[in-house]
Amino acid sequence: MKRAAKLLSRNRYAGRKISAFARSFLREWKRLDLPSENAGVVVAVSGGADSTALLLVFDELVCAKKLKLKLIVAHLDHQLRDTSAADARRVGALAKKLRYPATITKFNVQEKAKKSRDNLEQAARRARYEFLARAATKEHAAMVVTAHTMDDQAETVLLNLIRGSGADGLSGIEAVRLLAENGKTLLVRPLLSWAKRADTERYCRSRGVEFCVDAMNLDERFSRVRVRQQLLPLMQTFNARVVEALSRSADLLREDKHALNGAAERLLELARENSLTNGNASSAVRLNVELLAVAPAAVRRRALRQWIAMGRGDLRRIELAHILAVEGLLAGNRGGRTIELPGGATVSRKRGWLLFNR
Amino acid sequence: MKRAAKLLSRNRYAGRKISAFARSFLREWKRLDLPSENAGVVVAVSGGADSTALLLVFDELVCAKKLKLKLIVAHLDHQLRDTSAADARRVGALAKKLRYPATITKFNVQEKAKKSRDNLEQAARRARYEFLARAATKEHAAMVVTAHTMDDQAETVLLNLIRGSGADGLSGIEAVRLLAENGKTLLVRPLLSWAKRADTERYCRSRGVEFCVDAMNLDERFSRVRVRQQLLPLMQTFNARVVEALSRSADLLREDKHALNGAAERLLELARENSLTNGNASSAVRLNVELLAVAPAAVRRRALRQWIAMGRGDLRRIELAHILAVEGLLAGNRGGRTIELPGGATVSRKRGWLLFNR
Repeated sequence: MKRAAKLLSRNRYAGRKISAFARSFLREWKRLDLPSENAGVVVAVSGGADSTALLLVFDELVCAKKLKLKLIVAHLDHQLRDTSAADARRVGALAKKLRYPATITKFNVQEKAKKSRDNLEQAARRARYEFLARAATKEHAAMVVTAHTMDDQAETVLLNLIRGSGADGLSGIEAVRLLAENGKTLLVRPLLSWAKRADTERYCRSRGVEFCVDAMNLDERFSRVRVRQQLLPLMQTFNARVVEALSRSADLLREDKHALNGAAERLLELARENSLTNGNASSAVRLNVELLAVAPAAVRRRALRQWIAMGRGDLRRIELAHILAVEGLLAGNRGGRTIELPGGATVSRKRGWLLFNR
Repeated sequence: MKRAAKLLSRNRYAGRKISAFARSFLREWKRLDLPSENAGVVVAVSGGADSTALLLVFDELVCAKKLKLKLIVAHLDHQLRDTSAADARRVGALAKKLRYPATITKFNVQEKAKKSRDNLEQAARRARYEFLARAATKEHAAMVVTAHTMDDQAETVLLNLIRGSGADGLSGIEAVRLLAENGKTLLVRPLLSWAKRADTERYCRSRGVEFCVDAMNLDERFSRVRVRQQLLPLMQTFNARVVEALSRSADLLREDKHALNGAAERLLELARENSLTNGNASSAVRLNVELLAVAPAAVRRRALRQWIAMGRGDLRRIELAHILAVEGLLAGNRGGRTIELPGGATVSRKRGWLLFNR
């Protein structure tokens, strides 16, 4: 009762120093150059420790007037487990106690997964982000905030490593990116670079707020859960701070990725600009073979990937093998060869040019 | 006896097709642009499956006249185990049977490790490469060849990941590099990109040649052995071809690394060239702050690392933290700050310039 009474008052932090967790959060918020006032923020809350801590730390900082943001709690009930309706009610109740508006929606992920032929985890993820994007649009929010932690980052790096990814996959999750490529809404992960799961659990407990234990976490069907429960603990016997180590690797590779993507964009501009000087409008999609051939492989392949994305609209089902096949067209002097891409588009070489044909 | 008799004759392959293992080896040898004649090759043979297979495959290709190389077998007896003298004798006997000259040397690694305060694995490694470099010089060999496989590559990637490395560590072992920075001798790993440990064992057996089982491999003191015996097998339960996946990640990151190091060299030339236009010879070690500040972080940090290596002669004990501290000098307009590097050198900022002082 005492706790509930405390929670009911917006003055519940009056006169208290803000917590260490909130100080770390605020430091990261500023480092990421995010607005501290006049912005709507959709907070994705599953009800687990991470997202409950995310909501509570926003609340602490809003009450302490360190952040003047309009919070909207968002929860998607995937209907994947017995407790999901109870979890939804609990999130709704917490939002109400803290006096923030909440958007809570049910969704049959199982059915969706069958239709889209995604696996359950992919389908749940896709449904969640679509729901968050709709919530942001409806509420005119500047950003959607999710509670990914340093542990999530480490798991993502390992999952991508197990698949043999390059820097794009191994650099893991971005702390700030656009929610949709053509939109303006930001997708922000303010816990990613500093908070571990143990920190969010501790913070929830210190605030006297219960969180649900994700039953899915105990389900070993999901590779991510096996990474968390088997692979990371084994790696910790080599280095107790392996989560931090993986996060640092991801940070370094993310910088590499940004530098190389920038270089690839410049290469693409150069190779396309030259083709435009031909005065032929349709030649905008042609690329100068010679310019591509002399670029470093890492830059050239990224440029080809960007160019194919522009031509097709997306990169679905485009694998490294396709990029390497297109790159193969650059070797030697022979034109007249064609590479077929999944979905029907082709890339061919004609004299000194690469041509994209839909 | 029959096998021994076969081995004794240089015509032992006469009329036979070369093996699939040798064909793969030859394909890689050509892909790496290595000479197929008129070159001395020091082959590092420990006597384990990988290096025994390496010697045998060279022998197969030399006998089949696909490679006309002068082979020299080199073996360093680390004296780390009871069997080490027997291993050395076995390698010597194999070289003799195949009629290649052999350089076999004893070395007390334990003692060396104590003196240099390296751990045993580091000390053994250092001693081995120094021995191989001496053998190459003495024999006027163009290259030293070691038997690193795709499994070694995967282990290296994981060990560096556990430490939180960037692309430089995660890109693993190079298939071809200079043995020493200032030398001409190549260090070549022709098995790295395609052969797995199981392949080398199978090839040795198919040739009827015994190999020693490295007792050290069973010693869990070494992290590498634990990666091999615990971590990789667990990762194989996620992806049966995880060794190939790790090798692919390393290949992709190695290309990134080469592109970024190239960009860093160009940035350094640009930043130094501008300082030389001042007409002051000593200003060659000054770097233009403005040019560095606008470069992408991944390129800038590599340029600073190269610049520090030039100033100090090496990068010993230089960690990411030192590079970040030097990078910190670029922020803002203030000069007059100084960063101390391990070993006594300093970097300071004076107006628009970074200065290196020994």
